Amino acid sequence: MATHGIVLFAHGARDVRWREPFERLADKLRAARTSGGEAGPVILAFLELMEPDLPAAVEELVSGGCDVVTVVPVFFGQGGHVRQDLPAIVERCRELHPSVEIRCAVAVGEDESVLDAVAAYCLRQV
Amino acid sequence: MATHGIVLFAHGARDVRWREPFERLADKLRAARTSGGEAGPVILAFLELMEPDLPAAVEELVSGGCDVVTVVPVFFGQGGHVRQDLPAIVERCRELHPSVEIRCAVAVGEDESVLDAVAAYCLRQV
Repeated sequence: MATHGIVLFAHGARDVRWREPFERLADKLRAARTSGGEAGPVILAFLELMEPDLPAAVEELVSGGCDVVTVVPVFFGQGGHVRQDLPAIVERCRELHPSVEIRCAVAVGEDESVLDAVAAYCLRQV
Repeated sequence: MATHGIVLFAHGARDVRWREPFERLADKLRAARTSGGEAGPVILAFLELMEPDLPAAVEELVSGGCDVVTVVPVFFGQGGHVRQDLPAIVERCRELHPSVEIRCAVAVGEDESVLDAVAAYCLRQV
């Protein structure tokens, strides 16, 4: 059976505090995958200003035995970073690891249930 | 009774496509507030690269009769934009509109149920 790794791909920032929700998200996913009987790892990667970058994250997953990697952009919108920068980096990763299947999901903010959760949060603020 | 406006504060991007989830989010909130019997408006504002900026958005809400404005940062993390840039802009808005109560929420990505929805989305990708 294929070992399927997940990379949570985020923008990165100078402020270390910015990283926290992504770490919490990765922890949630690890817990959910473990309780669901899935062994695949979950790691973070950043476009800029934070480590590791996406090629380093993919390298780590491949070294750890993953033969499928899904990159999930933890961005609200499908802007230039997700529509241009990310595909170029993913293409580079594919060239570096031709035997590994590297998939790329749509930005999380495009998902209806994510937007519903954000809307519910906003309504709780007023 | 106070008229309470919501500003969804996002980063902004060069790519117009980036704006779409925020527009969908604003539409969801308008629909929810209308069905909940709340009359207050919901508008977008951007830190950079897109219009309007936060002072212009607050000006619009105040001109429209809002006496309370809640700014919700639609960011994943409490990074420099939310912890430094935003408070400075909000302070400027308060000086411009001293009779209006301007509140500022924590970034949506810090919310547990938002992170749960993002995690569920990620799990559906593998």
